[in-house]
Amino acid sequence: MHPNQNNPYYDYHQYWYNEYQSYPIHQQHHSIDQSDIFYRQHAQATFVLVHGSWVDPFFWHGITRELQKMGHIVHTPQLPGHGTDKDKNVNHEMITKQVVHYITSNKLNNIILIGHSFGGTVIQKVAEQLHDRIKRLVFWNAFVLNDGESLADQFPPQAQKFLLDLAKQSSDNTIKLPFQYFRDVFVNLADLQTARQIYNATTPEPVMPLVEKLDLKTFYQLSTPRSFINLQEDTVVPAGENSGWYPHMASRLGIYRFIQGSGDHMSTAKIYPRRMAQLIVNASRD
Amino acid sequence: MHPNQNNPYYDYHQYWYNEYQSYPIHQQHHSIDQSDIFYRQHAQATFVLVHGSWVDPFFWHGITRELQKMGHIVHTPQLPGHGTDKDKNVNHEMITKQVVHYITSNKLNNIILIGHSFGGTVIQKVAEQLHDRIKRLVFWNAFVLNDGESLADQFPPQAQKFLLDLAKQSSDNTIKLPFQYFRDVFVNLADLQTARQIYNATTPEPVMPLVEKLDLKTFYQLSTPRSFINLQEDTVVPAGENSGWYPHMASRLGIYRFIQGSGDHMSTAKIYPRRMAQLIVNASRD
Amino acid sequence: MHPNQNNPYYDYHQYWYNEYQSYPIHQQHHSIDQSDIFYRQHAQATFVLVHGSWVDPFFWHGITRELQKMGHIVHTPQLPGHGTDKDKNVNHEMITKQVVHYITSNKLNNIILIGHSFGGTVIQKVAEQLHDRIKRLVFWNAFVLNDGESLADQFPPQAQKFLLDLAKQSSDNTIKLPFQYFRDVFVNLADLQTARQIYNATTPEPVMPLVEKLDLKTFYQLSTPRSFINLQEDTVVPAGENSGWYPHMASRLGIYRFIQGSGDHMSTAKIYPRRMAQLIVNASRD
Repeated sequence: MHPNQNNPYYDYHQYWYNEYQSYPIHQQHHSIDQSDIFYRQHAQATFVLVHGSWVDPFFWHGITRELQKMGHIVHTPQLPGHGTDKDKNVNHEMITKQVVHYITSNKLNNIILIGHSFGGTVIQKVAEQLHDRIKRLVFWNAFVLNDGESLADQFPPQAQKFLLDLAKQSSDNTIKLPFQYFRDVFVNLADLQTARQIYNATTPEPVMPLVEKLDLKTFYQLSTPRSFINLQEDTVVPAGENSGWYPHMASRLGIYRFIQGSGDHMSTAKIYPRRMAQLIVNASRD
Repeated sequence: MHPNQNNPYYDYHQYWYNEYQSYPIHQQHHSIDQSDIFYRQHAQATFVLVHGSWVDPFFWHGITRELQKMGHIVHTPQLPGHGTDKDKNVNHEMITKQVVHYITSNKLNNIILIGHSFGGTVIQKVAEQLHDRIKRLVFWNAFVLNDGESLADQFPPQAQKFLLDLAKQSSDNTIKLPFQYFRDVFVNLADLQTARQIYNATTPEPVMPLVEKLDLKTFYQLSTPRSFINLQEDTVVPAGENSGWYPHMASRLGIYRFIQGSGDHMSTAKIYPRRMAQLIVNASRD
Repeated sequence: MHPNQNNPYYDYHQYWYNEYQSYPIHQQHHSIDQSDIFYRQHAQATFVLVHGSWVDPFFWHGITRELQKMGHIVHTPQLPGHGTDKDKNVNHEMITKQVVHYITSNKLNNIILIGHSFGGTVIQKVAEQLHDRIKRLVFWNAFVLNDGESLADQFPPQAQKFLLDLAKQSSDNTIKLPFQYFRDVFVNLADLQTARQIYNATTPEPVMPLVEKLDLKTFYQLSTPRSFINLQEDTVVPAGENSGWYPHMASRLGIYRFIQGSGDHMSTAKIYPRRMAQLIVNASRD
């Protein structure tokens, strides 16, 4: 592990002189037709999209369709304790194990592994085990934890208390967000009808994986190429001197490709799936 | 008052378990016509728009017209010491009192109260008295003062000295900004002709309300929903580690809806009134 | 020199009461044709465009063409040790001297002097000698050094080590960036083909001018109007609490005009030259 993983430029030497030296550069390219540059310039890629808290693979529905239209292969595993899995008694290790199993049992290789929100912590742990199958990691307004931290640690103390108290009030140690908080902070750019639709599709989130401190020493020794996508109106992690998605969280990736657009935490995926697919391709291409 | 009002997530519990529990959700919605989604999706709202320093209600002219075209009711009270009111001997309390009087004498209820720039400090104080008439507060690149602070406190020391020295040089304790400073900092995105037009319409600003320290203990006990609109090229409050509109100033609102666009402090309202009206509606809708 | 040049509002008094008092305001303007407002509203300007590290005047090719189409005069001097100049044994003083010589021998006056990236340090030093010939300084994602600092000082320690080690590995004290680092950090928004084209046109950068500490006391006494253009996806200087282009680097300019757009460090100039020319004009016009 790097002595100072908070430094945005850690591991230059290892980073470039190990993996990158043997990094396969695709030399063959289609001739670019400017009239549809977007759909022609990329070779087929294999995406594994890891959703975040409160949602399930349906979160990726529109984006998946757009990526498939471009000719890509898309996988959207469901995390334990989410969506149709009603057993909320899960921890972070079980979630990681499930994604690792999904990738290996489907014999996926050379994948673009993308995590949204909580999914960032999942792809950090999956990468520790499967880095030889991963071409690039993409964090989309995703948590990038330091070694020994939990997701909850990324929030100011009162926000942590808010989340934990919601869990305590539940019968099964899960968090159901109040609608008005969700509406203003998670889907701030949406109209009310869309906000309600997205909210109504959420399910209570198991609190355990959000508060577990993760051992990420191996992650910080990886030199897998990585990107960060930042939607500028996403305030789920409040922006401040020592918090926020970008640059605070992103900078933990060291050297990374930065891609940015307009959007909030959850409605942009639904309302502008093509725009999001474009950002994902820009973050993922060679 | 919250022990740490600088914390972006203060008052979670009070915030959501008081006012928000009884917050009226408009369930009825028009069917959305995608061809003109903007003008159809909102019920009629009542806006009270509070202008900032150096200007008067004419600042809101284009925006008012756009909001009215959408069917909304718009009020733009003139602050004492501004516009046609040539008596510059005003303080912050007189300004607040005038807006309170405007709202109550016009029997306005369920209003969206919007402050631009200095107007932010005014809606903070008005909200303390009229929170039961206010549906949502919207701060548009507006000052959000901590309890006991003045607007001038939000600037670095030398900028404060600059403003105060300008006031001392006046015969009536007002500030007239030098054109080139105004042009580069207040209307940086405008062409020179527009810059001059806007500058020529400004009047000297009474300095007293800018240097008075405000008691805002009551404001920080309110749970009125609130939004912050940030125009990204607005540098009137210089961005820095401990200053700037966003996230520094905005974070004082605790939990808020964040809306963002491109624009500067004063020319965007004039050149792109529809764009601004859209941002205001996005910040204000249920 | 100002006692605290890090303060974003230094030198208000000197700034506005010296040079600005006699600053010539162009009163004459064309009538604005809204159908082509961009090409009509500006009087002819003389631009001197100073390129950054690893590139040469060809960097400005597309932008120059766009500015010329608008009727402007454009100069793009080649810095010593760059492009066709194969002698890499140069220092910062030699580079400054060359640009000063270019401007004076061509008898250029009333110029807009623009620096990109490393070029920012060059225009700082040129301005010290030729401020009477400069109408405005424009820094485009450009280094603005504090007095006594080097360009390398603007990077975190490990990034400095990375750059210096690359220089040590060379036979002539130059830096050639690894392609994958360049691709992810310098041309993050480009497709791979464009990334390779831009990379292949780069030449090794002499390290000396990047590590020399510059005396900038005279620069910080100048009151020449200045602008900063920020492309938001430019991460060559990593954004963080105490680093980055904006606001960290830009704030050293004191009072400046802020212009912003979407783009990365090197591909935007090539792919969107008209967009960049527009931003440059917006940063430069009266």
